[in-house]
Amino acid sequence: MLIVMNHTATQADIEAVNQAVAEMGFSAAPIPGSERTAIGVLGNQGYVDDSKILELPGVQRVIHVSKPYKLVSRDFHPEDTIVDVAGVRVGQGCRPVVVAGPCAVESEEQIVRTALFVKKAGADMLRGGAFKPRTGPHTFQGLREEGLELLALAGRESGLPVVTEVMSPDSVGLVADYADLLQVGARNMQNFDLLRELGRIRKPVLLKRGMSATVEEFLAAAEYILAEGNEQVILCERGIRTFETATRNTLDLAVAPLIRELSHLPVMIDPSHATGKRSLVPPMTLAALVAGAHGVLVEVHPEPEKALSDGPQSLTFQGFERLMADVRRMTDFLGFARE
Amino acid sequence: MLIVMNHTATQADIEAVNQAVAEMGFSAAPIPGSERTAIGVLGNQGYVDDSKILELPGVQRVIHVSKPYKLVSRDFHPEDTIVDVAGVRVGQGCRPVVVAGPCAVESEEQIVRTALFVKKAGADMLRGGAFKPRTGPHTFQGLREEGLELLALAGRESGLPVVTEVMSPDSVGLVADYADLLQVGARNMQNFDLLRELGRIRKPVLLKRGMSATVEEFLAAAEYILAEGNEQVILCERGIRTFETATRNTLDLAVAPLIRELSHLPVMIDPSHATGKRSLVPPMTLAALVAGAHGVLVEVHPEPEKALSDGPQSLTFQGFERLMADVRRMTDFLGFARE
Amino acid sequence: MLIVMNHTATQADIEAVNQAVAEMGFSAAPIPGSERTAIGVLGNQGYVDDSKILELPGVQRVIHVSKPYKLVSRDFHPEDTIVDVAGVRVGQGCRPVVVAGPCAVESEEQIVRTALFVKKAGADMLRGGAFKPRTGPHTFQGLREEGLELLALAGRESGLPVVTEVMSPDSVGLVADYADLLQVGARNMQNFDLLRELGRIRKPVLLKRGMSATVEEFLAAAEYILAEGNEQVILCERGIRTFETATRNTLDLAVAPLIRELSHLPVMIDPSHATGKRSLVPPMTLAALVAGAHGVLVEVHPEPEKALSDGPQSLTFQGFERLMADVRRMTDFLGFARE
Amino acid sequence: MLIVMNHTATQADIEAVNQAVAEMGFSAAPIPGSERTAIGVLGNQGYVDDSKILELPGVQRVIHVSKPYKLVSRDFHPEDTIVDVAGVRVGQGCRPVVVAGPCAVESEEQIVRTALFVKKAGADMLRGGAFKPRTGPHTFQGLREEGLELLALAGRESGLPVVTEVMSPDSVGLVADYADLLQVGARNMQNFDLLRELGRIRKPVLLKRGMSATVEEFLAAAEYILAEGNEQVILCERGIRTFETATRNTLDLAVAPLIRELSHLPVMIDPSHATGKRSLVPPMTLAALVAGAHGVLVEVHPEPEKALSDGPQSLTFQGFERLMADVRRMTDFLGFARE
Repeated sequence: MLIVMNHTATQADIEAVNQAVAEMGFSAAPIPGSERTAIGVLGNQGYVDDSKILELPGVQRVIHVSKPYKLVSRDFHPEDTIVDVAGVRVGQGCRPVVVAGPCAVESEEQIVRTALFVKKAGADMLRGGAFKPRTGPHTFQGLREEGLELLALAGRESGLPVVTEVMSPDSVGLVADYADLLQVGARNMQNFDLLRELGRIRKPVLLKRGMSATVEEFLAAAEYILAEGNEQVILCERGIRTFETATRNTLDLAVAPLIRELSHLPVMIDPSHATGKRSLVPPMTLAALVAGAHGVLVEVHPEPEKALSDGPQSLTFQGFERLMADVRRMTDFLGFARE
Repeated sequence: MLIVMNHTATQADIEAVNQAVAEMGFSAAPIPGSERTAIGVLGNQGYVDDSKILELPGVQRVIHVSKPYKLVSRDFHPEDTIVDVAGVRVGQGCRPVVVAGPCAVESEEQIVRTALFVKKAGADMLRGGAFKPRTGPHTFQGLREEGLELLALAGRESGLPVVTEVMSPDSVGLVADYADLLQVGARNMQNFDLLRELGRIRKPVLLKRGMSATVEEFLAAAEYILAEGNEQVILCERGIRTFETATRNTLDLAVAPLIRELSHLPVMIDPSHATGKRSLVPPMTLAALVAGAHGVLVEVHPEPEKALSDGPQSLTFQGFERLMADVRRMTDFLGFARE
Repeated sequence: MLIVMNHTATQADIEAVNQAVAEMGFSAAPIPGSERTAIGVLGNQGYVDDSKILELPGVQRVIHVSKPYKLVSRDFHPEDTIVDVAGVRVGQGCRPVVVAGPCAVESEEQIVRTALFVKKAGADMLRGGAFKPRTGPHTFQGLREEGLELLALAGRESGLPVVTEVMSPDSVGLVADYADLLQVGARNMQNFDLLRELGRIRKPVLLKRGMSATVEEFLAAAEYILAEGNEQVILCERGIRTFETATRNTLDLAVAPLIRELSHLPVMIDPSHATGKRSLVPPMTLAALVAGAHGVLVEVHPEPEKALSDGPQSLTFQGFERLMADVRRMTDFLGFARE
Repeated sequence: MLIVMNHTATQADIEAVNQAVAEMGFSAAPIPGSERTAIGVLGNQGYVDDSKILELPGVQRVIHVSKPYKLVSRDFHPEDTIVDVAGVRVGQGCRPVVVAGPCAVESEEQIVRTALFVKKAGADMLRGGAFKPRTGPHTFQGLREEGLELLALAGRESGLPVVTEVMSPDSVGLVADYADLLQVGARNMQNFDLLRELGRIRKPVLLKRGMSATVEEFLAAAEYILAEGNEQVILCERGIRTFETATRNTLDLAVAPLIRELSHLPVMIDPSHATGKRSLVPPMTLAALVAGAHGVLVEVHPEPEKALSDGPQSLTFQGFERLMADVRRMTDFLGFARE
């Protein structure tokens, strides 16, 4: 931690800061400069709350050198974590995975048919929402428990592990009974009670980045899960909110290689939610693989024009089949052995 | 709803859209233009899901004329809603209220002392967090139930109604036992299970705007609460996330008069979280009153330099006293009768 | 400047950094920590280019303590600068000024009529665009030199100093022949050739904040003008670009008091461009005065419904007259003596 | 164009709008709805200024169906434009190009050495800045005309066409004497005088997207160049400004395929400025090619640790050589014939 003093800070101000640092159990190392003095703080183990320092007279600002996460950081855990989703391995060195399926589970026919199709086309997992977070209360909110049952059924029939969203701490147990991978949606990335609850289960978690979360906050949110004992976490970039409205969100693809540097956890990309536009999904899926993503989530629907949500960004069966052929060729090209 | 066709859409495409609109139970009114055709949709009662239409060949985009909220809209509810918080009235025509207190309840001494002081200085309600959402898991998370008890105690001793945050659906009952006004924090603005639960209680709710929520999404989130039967909702702008880092967030003060146009619900401003900087709190508090806010939330701490969170944005007792003198003069100037 | 080393940096890495700092003519002060070492840089006079340091092995990042501006900073120039626009004084301690007029000069009748009206209503300066930056080339681009002549005429007839935008370095001379205050528009805030040219004239400059410029970049842009010798600069916040689309831009009003802390230059607010909505202009104008702005720019048009640009955000004569009555009462209330 | 009336608009309001539309020379087609009336506008040729309509009583908002650009739109120009830069062809169907070189021309030795190296490694053009836009005035601003001469020299010695930035209208002639492709930087994307001047020359232009420009504004800026008669324009995405600070900017890669849909102009990607971090440049370069970019701009410097600007994002010679091997394999894989 570095404390930057005002240009006008007095020697007494500087000494008061030194003393406050000492009272916190750390050492202070003043660095006099031509314009102002800065004071280095030594001996802290990780992130320090800076409120007390910021209050002192003459203090301009505090700069943190440590990060608000440690367990998810590659600094202290250099080996890559491989997440195992009912036998499908996700992470560095593994062939990238494709998670496919509709935005929402709508009926047995819809989800089973999709599951069998995406399995045949080469998908590794099945996705489908049972609990749907929607902007307004007057639209379809998901089939809820019935949706979970249908998703699990489709998983069994196709042999694919299933992924679905959990929206509140008290439904974690229920969702974990059906899902192989529990998803935290972007709106809930900082629902800390939910994260803590997911840290206590023995199933892997797919944590989506919040719409306006920095990478630092994203990793700190994952830290909540790891801190409770669950290290099986996959991070997923799904587009951030910016001023641009030509796409649904702005896909921040550069975070795939960046997160690989900062953390040992696997990282996936969701080009469907990120772009919101069917025609952009195939190029961004392939780009994600090339940028180093350990997997992608792709929305597929038997009849997108009848989908109850997110139709415009869902691929048709035919579109998905074409994309999977490209994914297979690209993954081979990138040097991954077929499983 | 208006459906805009591609420049290259055929007559058959247009007819297919007309038919799809008819199947949804609405009427289609094609508007041929020189560059492209647009198709108006008539007869819908409120927001229509556009997924099916967007799937059809030749459709470029769909423009919504209706909004994803109705109960919170002034269009259908022209009279202002006055929210009653244990006898303190908030809303149009009422003298603007000042909610003051520390970010977090830390001890009996701290919260009672603050309560008595802010009451004497002229505050209308006491705020204090018992459950604290924090970016990383390794920092102070609040005193939880003990914090609620201390807050309620401070409320009784000072005679001030108390406001505190609730973070999950299953703690709504607990928090409602202690609080006069239940706050939903920015990170939980779209925690829909929580909103629904708050819609079922008989206490007022203070809904904070999400860091990256549009005004439309903000009002749609409030709609979740009203849709369950609770109309006692106060909206609160607390700064949005932008590219600017000189302040903690960017205070979007213009939404105060804007929300007054769009909705009948009262709107408050939180200059402490919005700016994150003590010196900016007084000018922005006064500006908020002038811009038409029905109240403000201000962080006050007996010893900000020892605060466990948000010290740098908390006013000292002396600073708050000075601010309240200005608030009183300004409120008088604006023509509000003293209560 | 503080150099933060990686967790894995070796002693040799640290020594190489120390040496590089020494070669730049500064002293290095290593601060060993439990997680990583940081190295303070002493002796620099102002901002240092960090490229060379960032290249060295083991360096994680560089943190700047100095700012990219010095002449505009209050640190080195504590007294407030008062800008004199043809006799109208703008800055700390002066009665806040109101600059009013149409977005664009459209005709002699329009601009003279407006000038006489706003003068009578109490405005201090007349604004009007002759060169108009527009998103696309197929819309009205201003009357150009004819517009300058008409504006100057209206200024003479009303007795008001005139403000107008200059868009390129080679038209600075021309615009300076007519205008009392030369405006740099938001799109040109980092048109450095233009800024340098304006630094060489002897007339005051109104520098508008870029749509996505940080306060630091805004002040550094002003530094270009001061560095060439012209200290008569007024800074103007006119809304920044964010994800919110309910208003044209997001008025970042908190920068008014913030800039007053950071710089000695006066700061004005443009609520018309910031909100883009006529009904929001009066409340945000008054809020700006209360927040500490040294003036406001308000668009006024005799017939907004016939304006060639920005009609929806222009006040009518009647609306402006009402606003000026409120401005007068508020300015009196704030304790400014009438001129 | 669609005009949306307020819920409370009267029949007289609607008729007044109909009449105003008629006076503008268009036809009005009212679409009564259950909540409100909308009015379609027929017969307009392209974008219509909406100011007059927005002024009328009862009008809530106006929705544009046409775009502020036409010449750059694929709607009216379905065939792809191929830009020819001194014999190097850029655009659909051509092998993607790599433009490489330092941020700034610093010396003859530096630029010639770099030119020869990148040519040997397989680059198609040489980049190098002679006029450098920098945030503050106290840092290196480029060698200016001397830089142009050195760049041209390096181009001749290596046989590579050269690309460099032009910052003001009055230096367009000078820069065009030396450069094969004239670059407009992000800060100048809406420097309309500069764009118009570039529309009058007979050399190709590389237009960089502004830091906070929407795709629509980006295309409308290009329209300024085409409207003056120069159709040889390459669009370049170089990262947008968002709340995220972990990378220098946010690379909005999805605009590559999006712009290919909307426009016939070629699109390139600059991963160096977009990410600001050397380690992210190779993965994002390859991802750009896969996403459909017609070329990339990559910063390369013989000694990045001594670069006068942008060192941390510049590749070393060795790093560039490795990247070019990957680019060659990827381009082959994507099916482009070697030139």
